[in-house]
Amino acid sequence: MHTFFEYNWQVRDEWFTWCNQLTTEELLKYRIGGVGGILYTLFHVIDVEHSWLRAIVGKDDLVVPFAEYDTLEGIRFLSDTYRKEIKEFLPKILAESTNQLVTVAWDEKNYRKNDILHHVIAHEIHHIGQLSVWAREVELKPISADFLGREFTSMK
Amino acid sequence: MHTFFEYNWQVRDEWFTWCNQLTTEELLKYRIGGVGGILYTLFHVIDVEHSWLRAIVGKDDLVVPFAEYDTLEGIRFLSDTYRKEIKEFLPKILAESTNQLVTVAWDEKNYRKNDILHHVIAHEIHHIGQLSVWAREVELKPISADFLGREFTSMK
Repeated sequence: MHTFFEYNWQVRDEWFTWCNQLTTEELLKYRIGGVGGILYTLFHVIDVEHSWLRAIVGKDDLVVPFAEYDTLEGIRFLSDTYRKEIKEFLPKILAESTNQLVTVAWDEKNYRKNDILHHVIAHEIHHIGQLSVWAREVELKPISADFLGREFTSMK
Repeated sequence: MHTFFEYNWQVRDEWFTWCNQLTTEELLKYRIGGVGGILYTLFHVIDVEHSWLRAIVGKDDLVVPFAEYDTLEGIRFLSDTYRKEIKEFLPKILAESTNQLVTVAWDEKNYRKNDILHHVIAHEIHHIGQLSVWAREVELKPISADFLGREFTSMK
């Protein structure tokens, strides 16, 4: 499971670099599908990952307004900050029981920890697929989504 | 790992049902991004999954021309046929060593079985993200990519 997180983080970082080719206006421009834009997609996957993983370890939900981070530098800072925090507790999450029930701040249900991990992983890959279409729309080559051919460093 | 396969198959089947809303012409129409069209995307994820998984169990690569299956019924038939075959050997793949080295017909490299499984899973989720953008372009609601909230039956 941890390899999927490493994959998502590596692909996300490559998209950050890719974003340097576009102006902030292009990054913020409304686009059809998904959550409606390149930078907001990156914000959304970062926020969703952070919220769900914090819920697993019993931390409260931090609601962060997009408007405070709506530049490439801002989103990258948010991603780096959250990732540093996540790296501290993810090994523990992955090592312990997969069936733990998790309560969250944003609805009344209980979720199985293992389902949350699957959800967070699939969520980011899905949204990155949307970025790849928008990349072609602005006539740029998207970042490869291939899992094979990547080298992963241990997250520890 | 098997839950990601069940997830992909369930989402894929929901996209097949979704496709009934479109004409064959719309399904075959060239679209920007990915492999360039809705039906061809579904063909591509089916073909890639089947080829890599067959390689793991030492079966030869079956090269199937898209032109032979280029209707919704044709693609669905291909998906059902391949899935039936995959379901026979996937439990064995998932139960055995993850570090097995696999050779494939389409290049000279060796691949780690576990990497192939990650690759195949991420590959489909990524391409399905592209379908979701094209769905909005034709003003239809895409299939939900949410992992949470789904019920999975055992693949056995």
